[in-house]
Amino acid sequence: MAQVEIIPLGGCGEIGKNMTVVRQGDEILVVDAGLSFPTEEMHGVDIVVPDFTYLTENAERVRGIVLTHGHEDHVGALPYLLEEVHAPVYGTELTIALLKRKLQERLRAEHLDLRVVSAGDRFGIGGFEVEMIHVTHSLADACAIAVHAEAGVLVFTGDFKFDFTPIDGRQSDMSRFAELGDEGVTVLLCDCTNVESPGWCPSERTVYAGFEKVFNEAPGRILITCFASSVHRIQQAFDVAKQFGRKVATAGRRMEQNISMAAAIGRLRIPDETLINLNECDKYSDEQLVILTTGTQGEPLAALSLMAKDEYPRMQIVPGDTVIYSAKPIPGNEAAVWQTVNRLFRQGARVVYGPDEGVHVSGHAYQEEIKLMINLTRPDYLAPVHGEPRHQHHLVSLARDMGYSDENIIVMENGNRLVIEADGAYLGEDVVCGRVLVDSGGFAGVSDEVLRDRRNLASDGVLFVNVAIDSDAGKVVGKPELVARGLPASDGELDRLREHIYDALAALSHAELRDTAAIHHDVSDLARKFLRKEINKRPLVVATVTDV
Amino acid sequence: MAQVEIIPLGGCGEIGKNMTVVRQGDEILVVDAGLSFPTEEMHGVDIVVPDFTYLTENAERVRGIVLTHGHEDHVGALPYLLEEVHAPVYGTELTIALLKRKLQERLRAEHLDLRVVSAGDRFGIGGFEVEMIHVTHSLADACAIAVHAEAGVLVFTGDFKFDFTPIDGRQSDMSRFAELGDEGVTVLLCDCTNVESPGWCPSERTVYAGFEKVFNEAPGRILITCFASSVHRIQQAFDVAKQFGRKVATAGRRMEQNISMAAAIGRLRIPDETLINLNECDKYSDEQLVILTTGTQGEPLAALSLMAKDEYPRMQIVPGDTVIYSAKPIPGNEAAVWQTVNRLFRQGARVVYGPDEGVHVSGHAYQEEIKLMINLTRPDYLAPVHGEPRHQHHLVSLARDMGYSDENIIVMENGNRLVIEADGAYLGEDVVCGRVLVDSGGFAGVSDEVLRDRRNLASDGVLFVNVAIDSDAGKVVGKPELVARGLPASDGELDRLREHIYDALAALSHAELRDTAAIHHDVSDLARKFLRKEINKRPLVVATVTDV
Repeated sequence: MAQVEIIPLGGCGEIGKNMTVVRQGDEILVVDAGLSFPTEEMHGVDIVVPDFTYLTENAERVRGIVLTHGHEDHVGALPYLLEEVHAPVYGTELTIALLKRKLQERLRAEHLDLRVVSAGDRFGIGGFEVEMIHVTHSLADACAIAVHAEAGVLVFTGDFKFDFTPIDGRQSDMSRFAELGDEGVTVLLCDCTNVESPGWCPSERTVYAGFEKVFNEAPGRILITCFASSVHRIQQAFDVAKQFGRKVATAGRRMEQNISMAAAIGRLRIPDETLINLNECDKYSDEQLVILTTGTQGEPLAALSLMAKDEYPRMQIVPGDTVIYSAKPIPGNEAAVWQTVNRLFRQGARVVYGPDEGVHVSGHAYQEEIKLMINLTRPDYLAPVHGEPRHQHHLVSLARDMGYSDENIIVMENGNRLVIEADGAYLGEDVVCGRVLVDSGGFAGVSDEVLRDRRNLASDGVLFVNVAIDSDAGKVVGKPELVARGLPASDGELDRLREHIYDALAALSHAELRDTAAIHHDVSDLARKFLRKEINKRPLVVATVTDV
Repeated sequence: MAQVEIIPLGGCGEIGKNMTVVRQGDEILVVDAGLSFPTEEMHGVDIVVPDFTYLTENAERVRGIVLTHGHEDHVGALPYLLEEVHAPVYGTELTIALLKRKLQERLRAEHLDLRVVSAGDRFGIGGFEVEMIHVTHSLADACAIAVHAEAGVLVFTGDFKFDFTPIDGRQSDMSRFAELGDEGVTVLLCDCTNVESPGWCPSERTVYAGFEKVFNEAPGRILITCFASSVHRIQQAFDVAKQFGRKVATAGRRMEQNISMAAAIGRLRIPDETLINLNECDKYSDEQLVILTTGTQGEPLAALSLMAKDEYPRMQIVPGDTVIYSAKPIPGNEAAVWQTVNRLFRQGARVVYGPDEGVHVSGHAYQEEIKLMINLTRPDYLAPVHGEPRHQHHLVSLARDMGYSDENIIVMENGNRLVIEADGAYLGEDVVCGRVLVDSGGFAGVSDEVLRDRRNLASDGVLFVNVAIDSDAGKVVGKPELVARGLPASDGELDRLREHIYDALAALSHAELRDTAAIHHDVSDLARKFLRKEINKRPLVVATVTDV
């Protein structure tokens, strides 16, 4: 009997690290391979990727990896996945172009099989027929993906919105979604990131008016910060600069790279004689300049963050500057973003930010757009993805209002296995799944034990105690050595602890002093109790016993 | 010449730890003494209080401490301040009642001189005339404070809004503000927390309709979480419960304590036969119950957080429960709050939250209310307080629109000294000021060095290396001992490092092995370089040399 399985390894019950397995018999297709960012308690962790043990165990079955678009939460785990699983990667031109450099840095050429496809293309990957369907999103060249399997048609919306006035003139392909609806869609895996927002997401184009208003009022230079991959936003920055007769310079390596890459593949039309080098700015007066800069998330080393601290070598913020914050803080980055904004104000800049200014719009569908997607495709089963439980729950309510019954709404968690057969769908046994923490050195696999130690170290510091014992003679050699780090204990307090441990050891018999394991335990215990009782501190205590 | 100084020690250029010094000759008055919460990088820090060195150095000059209201960001530093400075504390009945228990736990009775005053009272503190003026806020019994000094009248708005339909019927005292305006206000220190919000803050009373809507739809129990000090909110919860014939139980110690305290002093009117004990809930059906619970900020040990994890011993969340989140995450707590909300959804509850649901309103004035306050008092000088630079800047724009010239708008930072004389105001020399970090043990004074160590420990862990040397004989004793914590290094890697250090030490001459200081340095250096090069890790390395 024809059967197909859908297994989310990431992106269900969370926002980020989107990755879904589609399996038909012995053939596997992967849709997206994204990362997410660490939460506060993941000390020393740079990025988080899905635990794709299921794919490494089935590596020889993987026929291909299809990408909806080039955002990190959909492609950022690819360097790690491709180290384990060698399969062709399919994506649109911009998606592949954004990825290429990073993959080439990390992977050997023979493991890289990147295949550019276009919206509207329909092609075979093993026994699957895969179809790319254009959607509008904050990033250009984004696609939904329809997988035509034997047991039915699966539609992955990817990240989408219905922008009826898109910057590049390319709308979400409503007629194809409607056709698929006519032909019959079995499951719609639908982006629900913005399902809490009623109504319709404003068009990317509305940002132009927001920019225009700021340009009309700005007395000096205008800095615009947006994601370096937001080609449509960057296009509008160039266009409004041109309209006001301003030149555009860039600050930040990624911004510079992406602009030249996007222009090279025709995704960005840079008006003639508009783009200048940042070093040329002194040839122009302040009111002739726009600077496009990285740093929307308050990243410590981004150009705008450095400018805000007056530590950017290539330019300085001066009173009269206007900074357009054309983005939104990613949850978790709020503090860093506001710190940058506050520093810019302190340096005399005016910062334009927030939902009322019209200088940023989301790339994700609001409620009515989600309903439109559902009404066009009319799936048998609806599965909310790219959302936390609260978002998934909202999509459930919305679908109920549209007449869906609960058995046709499937709220999946990562690792669930949705089995689809001709006569219906059900949840099978879960697969292994979870998260893998990657630290700043690129090491994938920071363990829970390491995290727990780091959490303890961070909150209370550490005390190191070394005692030297001559176990043959059964005597203590010298005073214990104590080193405290991250622990606010005075020298006097540490001296008292040293004496305390020494006295306790000195009271032991010769026989007892031969048991270094027991001494090790006793010393740790003494130190812990002393610190808790005497100075109300609970550091990690590490004892070593040197037997001389 | 008559002169008065205003010195903010906290709350200017930040939200939180509000504390302002007013000095006239040799007499000092303190307005509020608040705390703030640690930012993400302040590991192991529980709360942050202002550095009030200025006050300890002038302790004998302090005539009194006046509190605007009982929120922690206005009173939370008081236990620390009163340890150093013994002066009477003035506040309204609820303000003092909220404080009393905590102060009594920490301070000796002879250092506690708490004086209850009422809105409308005008009293002398040293040479100052102090006046309490009622304002509406999320907390009841809140006041603005007018200080009548020789050089002029200073008005501290405290936290305020203009709620024209307050729950207790007591409006902000507009006529007194207007009278003060007629008499002449020199400086208005104005709350600007919500200055980014256009229009007018909805009345506290609008929450009732939000509650009603949820009550109409709820199939089972209703849980409401709000701040335990939000007497008006709690009043409405009782009233709507009464209307729907539901009983109210409480979960969380603070909620229970505050309700009985507020009822005792007449700030809360509990409808007859409505309040029950949580243990009595099984006598009622689900649709007869409301549970008021702590946990608005996702605090790990709060009742609602425990329920969300199914770890609260006294009750469990079940499908059919509705949870009203009648609050807003304090910046920095977002992740913890959404985690709790997601867990509640996962347990089958419906959670009602967010600005569109009408179940929460702010306690701070929006733009038009701020303008009303300015227009009533018509101060010579306007100083935005209780805001970050971005908020202060917004108030500056708004004041400019109202016709204030830049020399009459004074944007202060903590530690600034605003000197007011008959003929004008100017900024004098700054005073010592900053932040004091208090850890979970109540230790005030976590240093920057300790924080830096903790940050390093958190991100990369720690490696201890102990080597034993016989410096008399000039030889190494045994292999170095290594202990790694929070550092993902394998046993094999640590073995290699041990050999590496041992080999390096073994190559030293007898003379070199007598220099334990040099060995100490070399061992740290070897370990650091090895880890960086071999496994790309940068832990804190602590070396000890035991001379046997």
